[in-house]
Formats: sequence, structure tokens, C-alpha cells
Amino acid sequence: MSLEALGSPVSFLKEMLGPVPNEDVLQEYEVWWVEGQAISDDIDRRGTPWLRMFDRFGNRVDEILYPPDYWRLLKKGYEAGVVWRVFDENSLMPFLLLGYVTAFHDPGLNCPYTVSLSTAVPLDKYGASELKTRFMPPMLRKEGLPWQGATWMTEVKGGSDLGVAVETVAQPAGDRWLLTGEKYFASNVGAELAVVAARPEGLPRTVRGLALFLLPKYREDGSLNYTVRRLKDKTGTRSVPTGEVELQASEAFLLGPQEHGIYLILEVLNLSRVANSISAVALAQRAMADALSFAEQREAFGKPILEHPLLRTQFEERLRDLRRAFALAWEAGRLLDEVWREGYPYSDRYHLFRLVAHLSKYWTAEVGAMTAKWAMEVHGGLGVLKEYGVERWFREAMVAAIWEGTTHRHVLDGLEAMERKGAHRLLFAHLSEEAEDKEVKELSSRVEAHLGLSIEEKEGTAEPLFWNLAKFTAERLLRKLEAGQPG
Amino acid sequence: MSLEALGSPVSFLKEMLGPVPNEDVLQEYEVWWVEGQAISDDIDRRGTPWLRMFDRFGNRVDEILYPPDYWRLLKKGYEAGVVWRVFDENSLMPFLLLGYVTAFHDPGLNCPYTVSLSTAVPLDKYGASELKTRFMPPMLRKEGLPWQGATWMTEVKGGSDLGVAVETVAQPAGDRWLLTGEKYFASNVGAELAVVAARPEGLPRTVRGLALFLLPKYREDGSLNYTVRRLKDKTGTRSVPTGEVELQASEAFLLGPQEHGIYLILEVLNLSRVANSISAVALAQRAMADALSFAEQREAFGKPILEHPLLRTQFEERLRDLRRAFALAWEAGRLLDEVWREGYPYSDRYHLFRLVAHLSKYWTAEVGAMTAKWAMEVHGGLGVLKEYGVERWFREAMVAAIWEGTTHRHVLDGLEAMERKGAHRLLFAHLSEEAEDKEVKELSSRVEAHLGLSIEEKEGTAEPLFWNLAKFTAERLLRKLEAGQPG
Amino acid sequence: MSLEALGSPVSFLKEMLGPVPNEDVLQEYEVWWVEGQAISDDIDRRGTPWLRMFDRFGNRVDEILYPPDYWRLLKKGYEAGVVWRVFDENSLMPFLLLGYVTAFHDPGLNCPYTVSLSTAVPLDKYGASELKTRFMPPMLRKEGLPWQGATWMTEVKGGSDLGVAVETVAQPAGDRWLLTGEKYFASNVGAELAVVAARPEGLPRTVRGLALFLLPKYREDGSLNYTVRRLKDKTGTRSVPTGEVELQASEAFLLGPQEHGIYLILEVLNLSRVANSISAVALAQRAMADALSFAEQREAFGKPILEHPLLRTQFEERLRDLRRAFALAWEAGRLLDEVWREGYPYSDRYHLFRLVAHLSKYWTAEVGAMTAKWAMEVHGGLGVLKEYGVERWFREAMVAAIWEGTTHRHVLDGLEAMERKGAHRLLFAHLSEEAEDKEVKELSSRVEAHLGLSIEEKEGTAEPLFWNLAKFTAERLLRKLEAGQPG
Amino acid sequence: MSLEALGSPVSFLKEMLGPVPNEDVLQEYEVWWVEGQAISDDIDRRGTPWLRMFDRFGNRVDEILYPPDYWRLLKKGYEAGVVWRVFDENSLMPFLLLGYVTAFHDPGLNCPYTVSLSTAVPLDKYGASELKTRFMPPMLRKEGLPWQGATWMTEVKGGSDLGVAVETVAQPAGDRWLLTGEKYFASNVGAELAVVAARPEGLPRTVRGLALFLLPKYREDGSLNYTVRRLKDKTGTRSVPTGEVELQASEAFLLGPQEHGIYLILEVLNLSRVANSISAVALAQRAMADALSFAEQREAFGKPILEHPLLRTQFEERLRDLRRAFALAWEAGRLLDEVWREGYPYSDRYHLFRLVAHLSKYWTAEVGAMTAKWAMEVHGGLGVLKEYGVERWFREAMVAAIWEGTTHRHVLDGLEAMERKGAHRLLFAHLSEEAEDKEVKELSSRVEAHLGLSIEEKEGTAEPLFWNLAKFTAERLLRKLEAGQPG
Repeated sequence: MSLEALGSPVSFLKEMLGPVPNEDVLQEYEVWWVEGQAISDDIDRRGTPWLRMFDRFGNRVDEILYPPDYWRLLKKGYEAGVVWRVFDENSLMPFLLLGYVTAFHDPGLNCPYTVSLSTAVPLDKYGASELKTRFMPPMLRKEGLPWQGATWMTEVKGGSDLGVAVETVAQPAGDRWLLTGEKYFASNVGAELAVVAARPEGLPRTVRGLALFLLPKYREDGSLNYTVRRLKDKTGTRSVPTGEVELQASEAFLLGPQEHGIYLILEVLNLSRVANSISAVALAQRAMADALSFAEQREAFGKPILEHPLLRTQFEERLRDLRRAFALAWEAGRLLDEVWREGYPYSDRYHLFRLVAHLSKYWTAEVGAMTAKWAMEVHGGLGVLKEYGVERWFREAMVAAIWEGTTHRHVLDGLEAMERKGAHRLLFAHLSEEAEDKEVKELSSRVEAHLGLSIEEKEGTAEPLFWNLAKFTAERLLRKLEAGQPG
Repeated sequence: MSLEALGSPVSFLKEMLGPVPNEDVLQEYEVWWVEGQAISDDIDRRGTPWLRMFDRFGNRVDEILYPPDYWRLLKKGYEAGVVWRVFDENSLMPFLLLGYVTAFHDPGLNCPYTVSLSTAVPLDKYGASELKTRFMPPMLRKEGLPWQGATWMTEVKGGSDLGVAVETVAQPAGDRWLLTGEKYFASNVGAELAVVAARPEGLPRTVRGLALFLLPKYREDGSLNYTVRRLKDKTGTRSVPTGEVELQASEAFLLGPQEHGIYLILEVLNLSRVANSISAVALAQRAMADALSFAEQREAFGKPILEHPLLRTQFEERLRDLRRAFALAWEAGRLLDEVWREGYPYSDRYHLFRLVAHLSKYWTAEVGAMTAKWAMEVHGGLGVLKEYGVERWFREAMVAAIWEGTTHRHVLDGLEAMERKGAHRLLFAHLSEEAEDKEVKELSSRVEAHLGLSIEEKEGTAEPLFWNLAKFTAERLLRKLEAGQPG
Repeated sequence: MSLEALGSPVSFLKEMLGPVPNEDVLQEYEVWWVEGQAISDDIDRRGTPWLRMFDRFGNRVDEILYPPDYWRLLKKGYEAGVVWRVFDENSLMPFLLLGYVTAFHDPGLNCPYTVSLSTAVPLDKYGASELKTRFMPPMLRKEGLPWQGATWMTEVKGGSDLGVAVETVAQPAGDRWLLTGEKYFASNVGAELAVVAARPEGLPRTVRGLALFLLPKYREDGSLNYTVRRLKDKTGTRSVPTGEVELQASEAFLLGPQEHGIYLILEVLNLSRVANSISAVALAQRAMADALSFAEQREAFGKPILEHPLLRTQFEERLRDLRRAFALAWEAGRLLDEVWREGYPYSDRYHLFRLVAHLSKYWTAEVGAMTAKWAMEVHGGLGVLKEYGVERWFREAMVAAIWEGTTHRHVLDGLEAMERKGAHRLLFAHLSEEAEDKEVKELSSRVEAHLGLSIEEKEGTAEPLFWNLAKFTAERLLRKLEAGQPG
Repeated sequence: MSLEALGSPVSFLKEMLGPVPNEDVLQEYEVWWVEGQAISDDIDRRGTPWLRMFDRFGNRVDEILYPPDYWRLLKKGYEAGVVWRVFDENSLMPFLLLGYVTAFHDPGLNCPYTVSLSTAVPLDKYGASELKTRFMPPMLRKEGLPWQGATWMTEVKGGSDLGVAVETVAQPAGDRWLLTGEKYFASNVGAELAVVAARPEGLPRTVRGLALFLLPKYREDGSLNYTVRRLKDKTGTRSVPTGEVELQASEAFLLGPQEHGIYLILEVLNLSRVANSISAVALAQRAMADALSFAEQREAFGKPILEHPLLRTQFEERLRDLRRAFALAWEAGRLLDEVWREGYPYSDRYHLFRLVAHLSKYWTAEVGAMTAKWAMEVHGGLGVLKEYGVERWFREAMVAAIWEGTTHRHVLDGLEAMERKGAHRLLFAHLSEEAEDKEVKELSSRVEAHLGLSIEEKEGTAEPLFWNLAKFTAERLLRKLEAGQPG
């Protein structure tokens, strides 16, 4: 591949994937980012925006004081079709491709797009028809800023063990429910609609007791349906406002059958995890591109530092990792594109997808963070100055690494998918085209042996296994991509 | 070792080293940090301070507007003896031990102490007697804030290739020199004295053309001897002001014979690198301590997350790495304590020290950064919030990783020490007590083979070798420490 | 008087008042401010502090993240006796004198002291004995930081028309009450105790329906008794945290008989208004001192600008205004010192005090703001730079002008005191020592004529009358002071 | 007039002036400000932007990091014709009218427009033809952002006494000059062209020794012609970057004959002063409009506070002052529009203009500041919160009051115009249409008497005289306007 492609997400997508749908849209969107980057850099530089809680007359308004540029920036991706094209084309590809271009320039901005889609999808799949009639059109608006979505699960006690941590209670009230509780990490907190996890009154404090609700920002009379306690002061992803939300008898609508609530919640999370992987890869590409452009120009000992053998080796190894990570994340995307319309009970294809998604979320986060760290080192002292923004990519990368479940979560959930659904067998079959595949056989035996360990040992030593499985999968998928590539 | 010791740098020092000199001083200093930490956190939170360039009457003053608390904080380490005890006790140990306690709470604050010492040492070793008479007493003051030092080498073209990058010119003027040029990363920029690299007029643009000068902040008439162009807006180490300095015929005094200038410069850097290693280890201890205190209290799935096997394994492996890194950094310190009074030409002991220092700077920086990253992950979403300061340790760690030479520098300089001085042979002899040491033999052959490669290959593939050498050295040194440890 | 005294609040107090009680304490406190000023400047420069709502473990803590220096600064005034001496000496003088020295350096810092006293006084006068036993000792602690108080009346609908605007409801619960509502301008929001206005359930929506309650920050079990929604981002008085408070069944204790609630509330406000006047005068002195020190050194057209006749005239006129304002504020203080132990029904002396307090709050606020504005102008371009802090005094002055009731409030309330209580007649008698006092007679006729106007006209044209009355009173009081002054 | 007009600068202009030229352009520009205001508010809220001094490769760039929105905002006024229309229509009216609309929304933004015009005018009047050919076209560009201008006179020793304070020296170098020195208040510091005061080498240290030079930002080879030391951290006018400029042999071109330098400098200042007056009046209108919109909606005691007689009276009096100030500023503008093409020696019309300009700058600054202060008071506690931006108008107003000469300057310069040029007689003739004008006669005698005083007395007591003269002139001019107004 050409090094030049590193500086352009669309070129990189094409080099890796061959022809892509809507290429003209992607190109135009990438060109816009010449202007958009300056906006994004500014949003990052200025830190968390203000939340104006009251207007001058004492009315609660909870308005987020981003500069006007932010809204211009945000609108572009929506208009390009990051959400509406998914429904127009009945495919996640526009979302994934546009998301990649977005995340190359601003990984945090991919969050609003993702959670908007993650709101529209369950609404479309599980919403009563009057809900869809009321809420889908403004979400699928093709011009101007559409209604945005948001997905709020986590509460103050944490996001891993939702069954216990969700304390928000839902009380039935005619055709709707009244929700009372607090959401502690409410991303895209200015959204007009959110899907939220809550526990219908009386149900048990386990994941089985959870249901998914659609929560509008405003009641039908125009009043605020909930309040925002504050915005979080995050080190990264400042292009998405994350807040704490206080629900007090806030009106909401049940999505799907209550007893399938946890499945709906997991479907939402799975979509986010794939988007997160895609973002992490785009971020890694970006960090490498910045490092490269610096190393090509900065001189030491009589030549550009890129021509020094040690740096050159590092660069090539990281480039291979980037390509592997791309292949892995993209496979997660492609599989999701096959299964996203499924519901409980799920097909084997879905279980395969789940394992790939866990491997991908886990491994791409690591590649993203390590590439960003390396880009700082390549810049030397400039790498820790706020002035140049190189350090931004690491801040962004760490949010990607932690959001949607940290390392631990994905290793353990991946383990569970292997144990309960035999997902590793589905994976090996997926990766291997020949009957005799020695590498696959070896790894397969290792996995099977691992699954037979005591729970203490199995979990305690799972990470190296999972790491190898991810890297192996990524390498295999990359070779497939390379085999299918033009030129 | 006890997990409790993780929360206390003095306890950890004692567990690792056995009895330490001036233990009461260290204990008292650690106790002070209960108050000091709140100051340090505040300094970090508020970001880069203002530089007041002019007073109300138009006089240039270049005053750094830290809050009063900063000066209280800074004074404590000086009063405890981080500089003066080195000369009183003719040993670097007080500096290293107090520096460890400092860096556990605020890695950046160890910088002013280090550069003050790095100024006093060459002044003491190489300064003319009237310079020592004039400048040593205020630097060794035992009460109140002493005069501080600073070490300014890097210019705008970079810090690796000093021979070419230093454009500051020195012109002789009687008993002193007049320096004109700019220093681009001037740490501890408010110091009363600095040692700076400059090129006496007419000398060649190589490292041989450089000399080391002592540069006071004020001229004898009280006027400013140079100006500060601005403070750098760094992501970490906000407890030390880093600025850009403009020298315009600034008065300075030559240290040592001009033709040994580059050796003096490297002696200064070597001291800083050891201090940097010590800081990186202390930082790693701190990040682990914070992760531990969180993991012991945060619950998921019915028990503290520390009791989950996967997290437990990670914790134990990182703890081993911390202990290895400690052993390596401390050996660098101990060796420096033997050789710091040496001058050119240097003994074999000095060359051994140099290699250990490169290995240590290289590897401890990595352990520091990776431990800090892990501590963020353990905290989940809280890890990326500015509110809790966990993310601070990574910011600090990256400065440690980049300052005093990045990875590339240390790998290549270490290689040079092996090639030119056979420092690897000195190292293996140092590590091995038996004639037959299979591991050492194997590694030794690998190093020798590597040194025979073409320059392209030798440099291009040096990093894995260097990594292994560092880890091996660290593990061996740790075993020695463990063997010598009480109970 | 000497111009030098302008730079020292204690010297100015002595020049104006003659010997003052506890002079040694005042002197020592003023000396401390050499250090304190740097802290205060830093607090101002850094803006509104963070509010940390939750600790790392998800417990609500509502901790205000001032730097440690803030607490050192705050403690000094308390230790000097700004509250405890009032009860030890049974006199407000220590509060007023120490407050003047405080406000000269930091007008905002006088707020915590004032509201602490304004909490202790009604507790002492009206609290049940078990409340006093429990809460007075920590408020009167002589060493370390005592418990602080706060006075929270205003809600989101405004602070003038409390009868209607207070929506906080109190429900009886055994020996205490449960308060539910919100306080919108809660000064000194970190205080351990507050006195708050609330409406016992069922009482009418008028001032008669209000009662005063004592509200501890923590319940007896150590849990938070209310939450802080956020801190206000104020342009001035950053040395006192002002927040919004959410009361949800917060435990509180009734002070005094419910039906006298509004009197208790007004007593609290009256004390604050006097303190506010004193602060405004100290601020005016400070702004003049800064302007003077600049004008003495800055040169234009061959001489210090202070020697230019136009500036000189301005300076002298402002100095006279400062002295007038001092005399007026101090009389308000002296009268309050006579009547602060009174309760409803009040004596004529109290009504006289009330009118003088309204005149003083009104006029000193204006003098403070205009002097601060003038000090900016004297500094020319430097006056609008944040670097030099001259602009701070205006920011502070505007808070003084607006807090405790704006101009409108004091003019109208002063009018009411004249109409209902004949307070103007008490005032004229107070000011005049001779039977035949032509000026008094004229002004008296003018006031009486004004009181006979229609309500539209009376209110609409009240301000020039009130202004003249204030200035006249101030001038008379100044002459009295001057007559009694030493030397 | 209707109260509604207060909320619209174009409506107010029309009410006061009758039909205005280019009304459609003004209307369109005002409509744009619905979006522009959000940008302006954001620029104000975020404070001083960053100055990026170097790019990643160590090249000095001195780039001001405003957000992209800023440039969009800035461009609008230029495109509407704030500069190019002046030359197209050979009239200052477009500049004054568009400037009024600008300043209503953002008084600071009127500065770049003003200094750009103040650069183009002397270039056009005095520049050599090759300079005009080179520089006028980019300054008069009608689409996109044109080249901007700037006017830098003040140095660190102050702006009043330029004859002594200007230390910048100009050395001849062929067809150009080399300037060395520092400019301390360099407004619109990012401009592509500046006019600067400097002293040709060897000339005396008086105003006669000064000349005016045209200074491009870049040399013909594209390199920076000077550096920016830093941006000033101002409390107001954040929509214009003000910096300190370091000139080191910076290339510049002499404008006009050297010996007329001081006249050219004063012509530049006179234009700025008129623009400043216009801005101050627009600001006063804006502050009143905000106060009004609040007072109409905020209720106390059962009715909107605007209906309370005391507030109503204040409002009406301030409205009258606003209208007077408008009439005065507009007359200064109209007179300047007659004389701006004049050069030394000047006509009587020019001297009349000068006196009116001094009166106008002096009095409108005061009306602007006091109206802004009053608007804060009307808002009560909300007036000192940063959240609502009411406090912004005062911050802006104080810059207007201090820029282009403080009070003292205008009183004394006005006095000089009366003494040396008999400008008061020209003024009285201008204001009075009848032979017998008692008020004019009285004031005239008072002025004449004043001019006969000793210099000490004349200057020391000049302010009340000047105040009265300004108010009288304003009132007379307002009556003229009112007489000529439609309906």
C-alpha cells in the first residue's frame, strides 16, 4: 500500500476494501473535513462546554453552550447519511464508512452518530407503530440537524454489572411508563430521544428484571421530561456532551416485550461496540498519519527521522498492526450488517458475530491507544504540548478503550460466548477454508483446554489467550482482505 | 511484600531496600504530603500558570504566577535536603530517596529538584572558585527556598542531535561570555541559575563545538539577564514551569575546559536520566496504589473487583513489573552514586553505569506509562474524567517517557555504549555471580551477534533486543534485592 | 489626612475613628495579608472552583475544590475573631473592624464571615437551648476553621419579593421540620450551618407566611442533608462559593416564633447590609490606593500623572467621597451595634438604624463602584487587562452593589421607613445638634413634601431625594468624625 | 419613539436619522446577527485565544487560534462593505452605519473594521502610487476576508504622551525603512497591514519627531516581517486580538511627508475616536434593550418590574441620555464625513469637528459605561453571573472608555482646541440658529472665563465644564434631530 493513503481515510478504505458504496458521498464528506478539523480542534481545545440550566427568567432549559460551529460540524455527518442511509439502503455500511471518515478526524464525534443510530434501530425494530410514526421521521430527516438519539444504561454504581447497578424504576401509567432514577454516564446528553435501561417496579434486581424504554427529551406539552445534573469533564471525546441525567417520573415508552429487555439492551451495546472498534482503527490511522508527516520532515543527524532504521521498523510494525486491526473491526462490521435485524432467539451467525465483536473491541482499543502513544513519542517534546494536539489522540483513544466495556468485560464476555455458544468453533470454521489448517487446530486445542480449567484459572489466565486469538483472527482476516484486494 | 506498602513510598523503599539512610527525614516528608497532595492536585488541575512579563510600570519582570501554595510545596523538598544533603553527605542517596517520595505524589515536582542538583554538581566539579563562592551558598541554603537551578540544552530544532541543533552562540567578554540564542524547552524556567549548552563563536557545528555555561537569572546590577518568551502549555508535569528563553548577550560563565564541553553536558543528562527513572517507578507505584484502592472497594457481581481472577492476575503481573523496574532504576542510582564525581576520561564502572542508565530510562518509562494506562482502565469511565485525577498519572508518565530522550535515543545510545565500550560485557559480569550462567551466556551471544549486523539491521531491529536486555537485567537485579531483603 | 494611610486599612481606620479596640489584632491581621493577598489574587484569577459531587465510589459528597491556600486564607479571619469576638466582647465592633481589613484586600471574603455571624446571631438570640448547646461551640471555635454559617433566602423567582418568591415548604416532623425546595443564590454554600427562609405548609404566600429555620449540612448520621446543584460562575467575589441548593425533606429547626419569621429574616438581612456597606467602603479605599500608587509613578509629559491638575482634582474629590462613605457606613455599624440584640417590636433607635442602613447600603455601593471604575481609567489600557487585577475591584464592587438588595430596594425600603416610622425625623434629630439648622430644615421640608406625593410620583422621583439625603447624612457624619479626630 | 426600536439597531438608526443609505444592506446584516450573536457570545465566553508561535517543524508562524466561526463572523462586516463601500461611495456613512449595527451586537468587533479603515485611508491619501497599487486591492476585496489593517502607536511607556513614549526607531533602507522597537497595545494584531508610529533615526523625542509608516505582516519573500510577543488578556473586546509586537528591522514604508507625521497620526486617531463614540452609543442601546426585555418579563410585587415607578423613571432618563449620546456621536460622524479628506493645514470645519469628536468620545464613553452598569443592576443577581452575559456590556464599555484616550485626554485636548483654534466659538455658532440664544451666551461666557484661568486651575477644574458642554451640545443636537424626524 502507499504511505500517502495513510493521510486519507477514504483512500485507506479503498485500499483495504476495494470499491466502496457511495464513494462520492464519502469523498465529499472527507473534503468538508478540511474545514471541519479546525472546528473539531477548537472544540477539543476549549474543553467541556457550559450547561446553561436556567434562562434569565428562571425557567429550566438545560441548554448546552457549544459554539455554533459545533452544530455545523455535527450536522454534516447526519446530512451525509450516517443514520438515514441505513434505513434508506437497509444496510449498516453507510454508517460504518461515514463513521470511519468521521473518527479519523474526530473519534468522539462518531459517538453522537452511533447512539443516534442505536436509538433509531430498536425504535424501528421494537417500537409500537404510533411511536415509529411520531419519532422516526424527525430522526431520519435528510436536511438540517435531525433529532438525535442517545443510549443511557450506566448508573452511579457502574456499567459492567447492569443487573445490580440499574436502580432506575419504571412505573406503568396508561400507555406509557414513568421513570425515576439517575443515569451517570449519559452520552450525547442533549439528544431529543434516548433509549434507557430501567427496572419495571417489582421485578428482580438481575439483568432479567431490566427493560428498554424510549425517553423523549420533551413532554408533549413542550416541557422538559428530565433534567441534566451536569456535564462530565472528560479528557477526551469533547465533541460529544456526556452528562448526568435525573429522571423524576419522566415519561417513557416500553420497547419490545419486557421479558426480552436485556436482549434489546445487549443489541444496543453490540452496535456501539462495533462502532467503537471502527473508531479506534480510524484513530490509529490518524495518529500514524500525523507521526508520519512529522517524521518525514523533522531532521536529525542529517536526514529525516523517518529514515532512521529504528523508527522505520517501528513504523512498519505499527502499520501492519493497523491493517490487522482494520480487518478485524471491519469483519465485526460486516457480520453485524448481516445480523442486525435479528432478535431473540439468535442464529449461530449472531453468536459468531458476538465473539468477533468482543475480539475486535478488545484488540482495536489496544492498537488505538498504543499507536496514539507512539505518535506522541515520535513527536518528542512536542508530543506533550497542548499546542499541537498530538496528545489529543491518546486522550481520545483511552475513552474508546474504556467505553462500551473495558478489556476485562470483553475477555470475559468472549469467554462466555465460547463456553455457552461454542462461538470459537464458529470462528475457526469462519477463518479456515481448508480441512487441514495446522495453526487453527493448535489454537483450537488451546482454547478447548482453557475452557476446561477451573473458573479461577480460566478467568485469571484468559487474557493472553484472548490476545492471541484476537491477533490470529485479525491476521487471518487481513490476509483474506489482501487476497481480495485490487492491484 | 504487603499490599499495604503500595500506598506508601517510604514503606515500599524499605521493603525493597531494607533500612534506608535518613529514614526519619523521609517519614516526615511523606507525612507532609498529606497536605502537599492537595496542593499538587490543584496545581495540576489549574494548568499552566500565567507568566507576568511586565509590572504595572512597564518593567520587564517575567514573573511566574503560581499560587503561593506552590512555593510552599516546592520549598519542602529543598528543606528536607534533596540538594543540600548531597553535598553534606557526599552521596546522591538523599536526592534519590527524597525524589522517590516526591515523585510518588507529584512526578513533575521532582524535576526542579533534579535540575537544581544537576546545576550544583557541575558548578561544584568544574566551576572556578569565585563562581563557587558566589553561587553555591544560596543553592545549598537549608531553610527557606534556596536558589534553584535549571539545565537548558534543547533548541527549536530538537534535543537529540545537539551538535547540529544548538544555535546559541557564546562570545568571550573578559572573565565571562555573552550568549545569544534561544532555548526551546527550558524546564524550571524561573530558576536563579541555569547551566546551558552553547557554541563558542567559531567552533564547528558538532557536539565537539559545544561548551557548558553557567547562566544567572539576574546580572550583578539586578537586571534580568534574559527574557522568557512564554511558558509551554504541557499536558503533564505542571509543577515545573517549562518555558522558552531568549538570550541576548546574556552573561554566562564557562564551566570546565571548553573542549570537554560535551562530556559535561552528558554528565548533566545522565543525572537527569537516573532521576527520571526513579520518578517513573514512583509514578508506577502510585498508579498501582490508586488502582488497588479503587479495586478493593468497587464492587461488581457481588464482590470487590480486585477479587475477580482476571483483574487479580493483571494486578500481580504489574506488581512484578513494578518491582523489576524499581530494582533496575535503583541500580542505575547506586552506580551513579559511585561514579558521579568522575570526569573525562571515564572508568569502566562509568561505562557500566551508562548502559544501566539507558536500560533503566528506557524500560522504567514504559512501565510507568503502561501502569498509568492500566490504572485508568481499572477505574472504568471514571478513569477518563478530570474530576478524579487518575488520568493525571498517564499525562505525567508520558512526559517522563519523552524527556531526557525518547525510546529511540536510549536504544541507540545503549547500542553505542556496547559497541564502543563493551558495556554489555561489563553488565553481564555485573549481573552474574557464577562462572556458568546459562541465561547470561545465551543473551550475551545474542548481543554479540547483533553487534555484528549491518548498521541498517542493527539499528532497525535493536528494540526487541534492548527490551529483553532491560527486562532480564531488571529481573536479575530484583532477585538480588529479594535475596538481600529482610524477612 | 496623610495619603500614605490610603494604602493601609488599619491606618485609615485609626485616622478616621481614632483609637480602635484590639488594635494589635488588627495590625497582625493586616500584616498577614501581605501573604494573603497573593492567595486572594490567585483565587480570583482562577475563577469559580470545581464542585466535586461524587467521590470515586459513587457517594455524593458535594465538595468544593478550592486550593488548600483558600482554607488557610479563610481561617485567618475566623481565628482573628471576626465571629467569636462578637460573643466574647458582646459587640459587633470586632466583626466590623476585621471585616474592613478583610474587604480592603478581598471584598468577597468578607461574605463568609458575615453570613457566619448572621447565622450565629439568630441562633444565639432565638435558638432553643439544645440547638445552641449543639451548634454554638463549633461556630465559636477560636483555633482552626470553625463551623461556618450561611443565609439562604433567595429562590429562582428573585430576592426582592420574598413573600411570593419563596416556594420552599416546611413540614413539621416532631422536634424538627422537613424542608423541600430550592435556594438559587446560596452564598458560602459549603457552610456547615445555614439559616433559610421557608414557608410552613399551609401558610399564606406573603411575607407573613415565612419562617426562619436552622439547616445543618449533615444529618446526625453524617449523611448530607441537602445537595448542591452547582456553583454559580460569578464575575466577582470568587472567594466565596455561591451555589444552588436542592432541599429534599432536609431536616431543619425553627428559630423564634413562626409568626415573627419575617422579622428574623429582616434582622439577618440588616446585618448583611451593614457588612456590605463596610466592604464597599474598604473596596473604595483599596481602589484609590491602587490608583494612587500608579499615578505617583507613571509619568507623562515630564511628571507623574498624579501631578497633573485634572487628575489631582479627581483624586481629591474621590477622597472626600470615600471619607463621607466611610462615615456613613460606620454610623450604620455603630447604630447596629446598639440595637442588634433587639427583637420585635423594635425601638425608635432601631428604626433610625434601619434608615441609616438603607442610605448607607445605597450610597456606599455607588461610591465603591464609581471609585473602582475610576481606578481602571487612571490605569489606562492596563486597567482592562486581567494581568494586573485593577479591573477586579469593579467586578467586586458590582456584586456589593447588587447583593443584599439593589438601589431600587433600598430607596423604596428607606421611603417606607420614613413613611411608616417617621425615620427621617429620627435621622434629622440625630444629625443636628442645634435647634436652628437651616440645611436640616430645608431637607426636612423637602422630604415631608415628597412623602405627600401620589404613590406613582413618590416612588418615581424618589432617587434624587434619596441620593441627596444620603450624601447630606454622610457629609454631616464625616464632619462629626473630623471634629472628634485626633490631631 | 417606540420602545420596540430599542431591540433593533437599524430601527433605532431610522427612528433617529430618518431614511438611511443602503438600508437593505443594513437590514440583511442585522438579520445575519441572529446567528452572529451566538458566535460573538462564544468568543467572549472563551476568553483570549491562543497564539501558536511555531508550527510543528519549528517555524515561527504567530497564528491566532480563533475558532473558524470567528473568521465567518469577521468576514460578514467586510463583505457588507464596512471598508470597501467607503471608497466606492466616497463617504464614511457605510462605515458608521454598519459599525453601529456591529457594535450593538459586539462592540469589540467594530475595532477590526475601524482599524482596517484607518489603515486604508492614510494609505489612500498619502501612500506612494506603487504602495496603493500593491496594497489597496486586497484591502478592498468585496468577497471573502480582505486584508485587514491595524494602527499601532502605543508603546510600553503609555499612549498619551506619544512624543516621549514612542521608542521605535526607523532607519532608511533604499525605498523603505527598517523599524526596530516594540508596540505594546497592538490591536487586531493578526492584520496583514498596519500603520505604525516610529521615529526616524536622529529626530527629536517629541511629537514632531514622529512619522507614520505602513508595515506589512509578511515580507515580499513570504517571511514574517515582525513577531508577536503575546496576546493581551483583556476583560473585554475579545473579538479583536490585541497583542504586543516586536519589530526587528521590520520593513516599512513612509506615508506622507515625514514632517507632517504627527498630523497623519492624529488623523488616524480621530477616525478611531469617532468610531469609538458610535460603538459606545450602540452598546448603550444594547444594554438598555437587554434591561428592557428583562424588566418587561421579570415580576415582583404582582407586576413586571418595568411597571414600578422608580425603575420606569430610571429607564426614561437613560433613554433620553442614549438619544442625546446618539445625536452627539452622529454629529461627530457627519462632520468627519465632511473633513476626512483634508490634510494639514486644516480648515475651521476640521477644528469644529475635532472639538465635537472630543466631546463625543468623552461623553458617549460615560453614557455607555453607566448604561451597562445600570443594566447589570436591573438584572439583580443575574447581572453578575457569567452565564447570562449581561456583565459583558460593562466589560466592553470600559475598553471603549479607555481606548483612544481616557477622559483626561479628551478634556485636555478639547481645552486645547478651544484655546488654540477657538473651537468653542465654532461650536456655538454651529449649534445656535438664532442671534439671541441665551443658553449659548451663558455657556460661552463660562467657557471664555475658564480659558482665562491659570493653567493649574484651568485644567484642574475643566471636567465639570467639559461635561456640561458635552451634555448641552448633545441635547441641542438631539433637538435638531427630533425636529427633522419623520412622524
